[in-house]
Amino acid sequence: MLGSEEGLVGVSRIDLKVGGSVGGKRGSTGFLGCDFWLGGEVVVLMVVVDGGASGMGGCWCGFIEINSLTYTIHVPTLHLGSTCEAIVCTLGAARDRALSSFGEEKITKLVVYASDQTHSCVEKAAKRVGIPPRNFQVLATTSNTDFAMSPKTLREAMDADTAQELVPLYVCATIGTTPSGAVDPVNELGHVTSASGAWLHVDAAYAGSACICPEYRHYLDGVELANSVSMNPHKWLLTNMDCTCLWLKNPTTLVECLSSKPEYLRNKASESGNVVDYKDWQISLSRRFRTLKLWIVLRQYGSDYLMCHIRNGIELAEYLESLIYKNDKFELLVPRKFSLVCFRLKPQNGEDGVETNARNLKLLEALNSSGQAYMTHAVIGGAFAIRCAIGGVLTQIKSGILMSSRC
Amino acid sequence: MLGSEEGLVGVSRIDLKVGGSVGGKRGSTGFLGCDFWLGGEVVVLMVVVDGGASGMGGCWCGFIEINSLTYTIHVPTLHLGSTCEAIVCTLGAARDRALSSFGEEKITKLVVYASDQTHSCVEKAAKRVGIPPRNFQVLATTSNTDFAMSPKTLREAMDADTAQELVPLYVCATIGTTPSGAVDPVNELGHVTSASGAWLHVDAAYAGSACICPEYRHYLDGVELANSVSMNPHKWLLTNMDCTCLWLKNPTTLVECLSSKPEYLRNKASESGNVVDYKDWQISLSRRFRTLKLWIVLRQYGSDYLMCHIRNGIELAEYLESLIYKNDKFELLVPRKFSLVCFRLKPQNGEDGVETNARNLKLLEALNSSGQAYMTHAVIGGAFAIRCAIGGVLTQIKSGILMSSRC
Repeated sequence: MLGSEEGLVGVSRIDLKVGGSVGGKRGSTGFLGCDFWLGGEVVVLMVVVDGGASGMGGCWCGFIEINSLTYTIHVPTLHLGSTCEAIVCTLGAARDRALSSFGEEKITKLVVYASDQTHSCVEKAAKRVGIPPRNFQVLATTSNTDFAMSPKTLREAMDADTAQELVPLYVCATIGTTPSGAVDPVNELGHVTSASGAWLHVDAAYAGSACICPEYRHYLDGVELANSVSMNPHKWLLTNMDCTCLWLKNPTTLVECLSSKPEYLRNKASESGNVVDYKDWQISLSRRFRTLKLWIVLRQYGSDYLMCHIRNGIELAEYLESLIYKNDKFELLVPRKFSLVCFRLKPQNGEDGVETNARNLKLLEALNSSGQAYMTHAVIGGAFAIRCAIGGVLTQIKSGILMSSRC
Repeated sequence: MLGSEEGLVGVSRIDLKVGGSVGGKRGSTGFLGCDFWLGGEVVVLMVVVDGGASGMGGCWCGFIEINSLTYTIHVPTLHLGSTCEAIVCTLGAARDRALSSFGEEKITKLVVYASDQTHSCVEKAAKRVGIPPRNFQVLATTSNTDFAMSPKTLREAMDADTAQELVPLYVCATIGTTPSGAVDPVNELGHVTSASGAWLHVDAAYAGSACICPEYRHYLDGVELANSVSMNPHKWLLTNMDCTCLWLKNPTTLVECLSSKPEYLRNKASESGNVVDYKDWQISLSRRFRTLKLWIVLRQYGSDYLMCHIRNGIELAEYLESLIYKNDKFELLVPRKFSLVCFRLKPQNGEDGVETNARNLKLLEALNSSGQAYMTHAVIGGAFAIRCAIGGVLTQIKSGILMSSRC
């Protein structure tokens, strides 16, 4: 019995070998196989058709590249429930690594860095693991960098903290920030963190999905300098919530932090070292079978369709962007990189920033009250931005209007 | 659209009023109703038929009592994924409450208490939130208390720690411990923690389900002294994993600890104070709709059947216990309280403890290799115990043998 996605615990060992159809372009993904152990953890090895791109840096663990017919097997990607959990776990690992060098008392000296665009879960995670709130450094961004984190600002902040005998611990770089879709320069930030010894986590929760398309993969340049990377297929890769992929450069650090070995969990398989006990890679003991739903999505759609889905969302965003450009009343607030469009009503003559923001808030409320659209907002560089995030499979253009195909 | 259990995010507001059938005994549970907000959180109010038992202390929030036809509405029970997460959250809340009084530097002085029977997730959670490992106090238990935590031992440990300028922070009492099914005396422990100011969490992950039966509810005596209580319907209440209920005496402490208010999440509903933002009660931002599957279980089976299910499991355990009593080769290691039977092959003449343990390990391996049974083990008071945990709906007695109905 394969078990439901919800109830795999207790399934006897099954060797499930699944071959992929790799001849044609459509559905050209494959899996080497899945093994389920009773009381253990499923390990799904993803087969990536790889044209020989360099190791991890050029090939997104867990994603699909179609270049040739060569199979490359990647290490298992840990599937968690959320980016929040991924960051709590990796931040905890970074903390323990630092404290093992500096001593436990130094916990109040550890510093975490994020930008003013970074997701709020990083600050929450920092609190979770005992980093004093005053040691959560928020680095300001500006339109000069399209609201990306500045490596120079980061380095200066770290140097200032080090001079005060604080310890730069962890930096979260984001590919596709929530407020504005900004992309932090992973390569440059990676050089800063490598020099300081801080842990670099790359949060690609949303835009990581876009990186299955070769034309967007350059945003991952430098990812080999990261200690960990996470993304959420449940955001933009057609996978039901919850499903977060976490890749670790050195899983040992995480395992040492999260490992527990009570007597009642001891078993020969674990002690043989031949299995991966994912209970030691996450907060909870038990695990749901998230991998299966991602596997089904990948098998069902194949890489071509998934890339098509991503590109379609981006094309629709480009279309919305073009409408905004053509309309004198509106303006874009940040350059669009993916399928998130941030725009607003332009300031009117004599209006100050507060009034412009209020007018845009009113527009957003009217939009959402109409029942025909739903958008959210952000404040970018002090300006109230309306965020239109396109990603649903039903969104299309009908009679020049962006709408759901159910309308 | 109700949405799948997995994909409720994005559902428009629905007012779903469901009446319960309360006339007869069978299926006498009811729900007041469910409200779903777009972008908000489902709130499920559980109607409990209550004979007037005193407030929270006498009535398990989220469970069903059948005493009369009076409806009592209880506050929402938070549904998380696991006990581990519940403890990380409550321990974090306890920590922040203490540090707000003592100062952030005191984090290295905070102490967490558990017994040698307490689940390993508490130690793991303590590490997660930055409690130094040396400050995780494991209190020894003995057969004198049937391996329950001793209030006297706890008090002495706290006094000794206070004398060293450490701060007793958090105690985890368990109803139905993993290794042995022991029950910590919540009332007496609650008096110790109340006097010291420490947070008392009651972990009823497994045996909390038994407390829907009046004859087991006395194990909850004193629960009104606890700061938080958790149990897992996914263990013994026929609910698919994952589903953990967490009740908090004062949710404000938790919310202050876990709250995040980024601009892009601000909305009128949240700011009105008329909704509960469960994102502030847990680690993750997004939530799956766990409540629905529990609701379906409760509606589908009703309280009578659920109590019958619990009692049936316990009767089967009693049967196994009787077989062990009748067989000279075996002995019980701890008195059975629920459906967990801990037993072993008795020591043979001239055999030392190590040899007895080795022989029992061999028996367990033979049992599990047979493919006809699956049991785990624990070490209780130095003795290797075979744990038979009965709870599956298919388990029955056939021809005097405890087996699955599929055999």
